[in-house]
Order: sequence, then C-alpha cells, then structure tokens
Amino acid sequence: MMGPSNHIYVGKKPVMSYAMSALIQLSQAGEVNIKARGLAISRAVDVAEIVTKRLGNGTFNVKNVNISTEQVKSTETGEMRNVSSIEILVGK
Amino acid sequence: MMGPSNHIYVGKKPVMSYAMSALIQLSQAGEVNIKARGLAISRAVDVAEIVTKRLGNGTFNVKNVNISTEQVKSTETGEMRNVSSIEILVGK
Repeated sequence: MMGPSNHIYVGKKPVMSYAMSALIQLSQAGEVNIKARGLAISRAVDVAEIVTKRLGNGTFNVKNVNISTEQVKSTETGEMRNVSSIEILVGK
Repeated sequence: MMGPSNHIYVGKKPVMSYAMSALIQLSQAGEVNIKARGLAISRAVDVAEIVTKRLGNGTFNVKNVNISTEQVKSTETGEMRNVSSIEILVGK
C-alpha cells in the first residue's frame, strides 16, 4: 500500500520538474502515482514516459493507468462541469 | 482479435466528432482503440470518457490503457524527437 503522499499532481510547470519529483518519490517509496486533469493529462504521460524510459535506467515501469471523469466547479460561472483525469502508477 | 480498421486517431477536430466515430465502430465491431500523440492525448481521454460515461448508456467500458513513446521526425529540422502516445481500448 502506498500513502497519499506518493501522489504528484501535474500542472503547468516544466515536465522535468515533475519528473524530478517523481524520481525522488520513487527512490523513497518505490512507487509514485502521477495524476493530472484536463490539458495537463498529456504532460502527465510525458512525465511517466521520461521517468520510465529516459531516466531511472530501466528500473521503473508503468504499472497501471486509470482514466476517469471528475466534476469541477467553474470559478467563473459556479456551474459544475466534467473534466477528464488520469492516474499513472509507476513502480519497480 | 480486432483489425487495424478499429483504430481512431484523435487529432484537432472537435471531441464530439471522434466520439461519434468511436460509437459507430463500437456498434459495428464491439471494440475501438482510441489513439493519440502529444497534446491530443488529453482529447483522446475525453473521447473515451464521453463514450463510456455520457453516451452508450453504460454499455461500454475502458478495457485497457497503454502509454508509450514514439519517435517522430520533425518536419522543420529533420531531427528525430520523442513524443508520448496513448492507446485506450474501449469495448463491452
């Protein structure tokens, strides 16, 4: 089991800053759950691919990928809208 | 087994046009493989979520999600670069 602190939320920072955070968590916990919503989903896939293919020397693999839909309240209109999300579990 | 014609490549068209194509393929073949590269990955997840959650009346589910890296030749510089990709298999 992994605790909730093994999550990384991918947003608008450069891909490499998330890749570094992911590697740090992998070195400490052996697993990291890379999460993102909306347009950041593409970047989350980039992070997982960089950690498993380019960094980490082949030590880590993608263990599971889950996609789902989350309800998010619009800050402008206050209406609920559906946003796609992804969770990518990377481990040994 | 599904043939190669059950693939949908998600690009820059509106999400709903891909969702409709996916539903047509699902009604004919029972399965569809939704593929995308780079920034279109987020849209491919949207298509899969719309087909499984909002349309299709709960008939279809995400069966498998695969992420990988493809090498693409830049049209400007001619250099090879790495692009993340996703494949989402939707079926009954």
